[in-house]
Amino acid sequence: MPRTRIHNLSISLDGFATGEGLGLETPFGHAGERLHEWMVATSFGAPIVGRTGGSTGVDDALARQHEPGIGAEIMGSGKFGPPGWEDDPDWRGWWGPEPPFRTPTFVLTHRPRPPLEMAGGTTFHFLDASPADALAVALEAVGGLDVRIGGGPLVARAFIAAGLVDHVHLVQVPIVLGRGVRLWDGLEGMEARYAVEAVTSPSGVTHLTFSR
Amino acid sequence: MPRTRIHNLSISLDGFATGEGLGLETPFGHAGERLHEWMVATSFGAPIVGRTGGSTGVDDALARQHEPGIGAEIMGSGKFGPPGWEDDPDWRGWWGPEPPFRTPTFVLTHRPRPPLEMAGGTTFHFLDASPADALAVALEAVGGLDVRIGGGPLVARAFIAAGLVDHVHLVQVPIVLGRGVRLWDGLEGMEARYAVEAVTSPSGVTHLTFSR
Repeated sequence: MPRTRIHNLSISLDGFATGEGLGLETPFGHAGERLHEWMVATSFGAPIVGRTGGSTGVDDALARQHEPGIGAEIMGSGKFGPPGWEDDPDWRGWWGPEPPFRTPTFVLTHRPRPPLEMAGGTTFHFLDASPADALAVALEAVGGLDVRIGGGPLVARAFIAAGLVDHVHLVQVPIVLGRGVRLWDGLEGMEARYAVEAVTSPSGVTHLTFSR
Repeated sequence: MPRTRIHNLSISLDGFATGEGLGLETPFGHAGERLHEWMVATSFGAPIVGRTGGSTGVDDALARQHEPGIGAEIMGSGKFGPPGWEDDPDWRGWWGPEPPFRTPTFVLTHRPRPPLEMAGGTTFHFLDASPADALAVALEAVGGLDVRIGGGPLVARAFIAAGLVDHVHLVQVPIVLGRGVRLWDGLEGMEARYAVEAVTSPSGVTHLTFSR
């Protein structure tokens, strides 16, 4: 059975998965890169920012779960581009000509456009659909593999709240952002539907997994 | 130098230190006892609920830091009694004739009353004062020992925001409460003023310490 999974979703101690003031030069707003420093310090994450090396311990092992067995990603419009990208017919995502997804990738937007076939196996499809309907479309594309919900936080919590997510991996970074988009809103009692584990890494982050 | 310390302040994953619907029968509202199960499972916490035994590992070691070296406690009116206790001249706190504080204990309230001397060394003093002024009063009573800020969350965050707290021990419980009183509001960037450590216990909670 294909599973629906969230990986490497970083949040602050106060639950913000992105900051305030998102824009082309500030994709995470006032949070800057602080939510993702733990990941680019791993051997999995270093190449994302053009580095080599990186740690190969707990953080790396958990970060690498992002990839295996994934046949499609679903992401929100806020992950695909800065506010207003829907007005730019030439916007092709943040990731250059060869995005790292390498699968069909479904972008949820109220203003769909034709599919974008990129180098390296990623094709962006644009869907105006509910979480359940989007997941049904993605499941047709995965050939029995799993679907990753790629975020941002609004999309992650909408899929979790709808009961559609089988595995959630959160990474709590020891900063207090104060402002931005909260992950937890509307998820009261979610722990009852999952086995929850927490492990702190020597880097200072705490990995939380919710599995069912 | 006396230090100002917060210990055993339990919060949910979404940062609520107490639930919604506080009352005489529901001191933590819809949170029930879930935020404190980890503590009553320790040998430190078991006697609080009339039990014997209890664990003697990481949770217990951290919970016990609540006591040593404390010369006074400051608490908010919401910790001293249920909403409306100020209208009851006979209310003497939740803790029976011999409260566990065993030091001068300052209750912040806009409606002060005469001091209450209890058995076992606790005297409740009622203060209508700012955090800084209340701390100054408490420091006169401690004889060089430390002052504990006893909560609830509104008082804890007011003292932290005012820069008055030297050590904060939080215990993050893996539940999503959804509603209640948040600890983190107004504390953006607090990590910059502290050394932060996190450790997960086998019980499933994550202990966070902020020290300066």
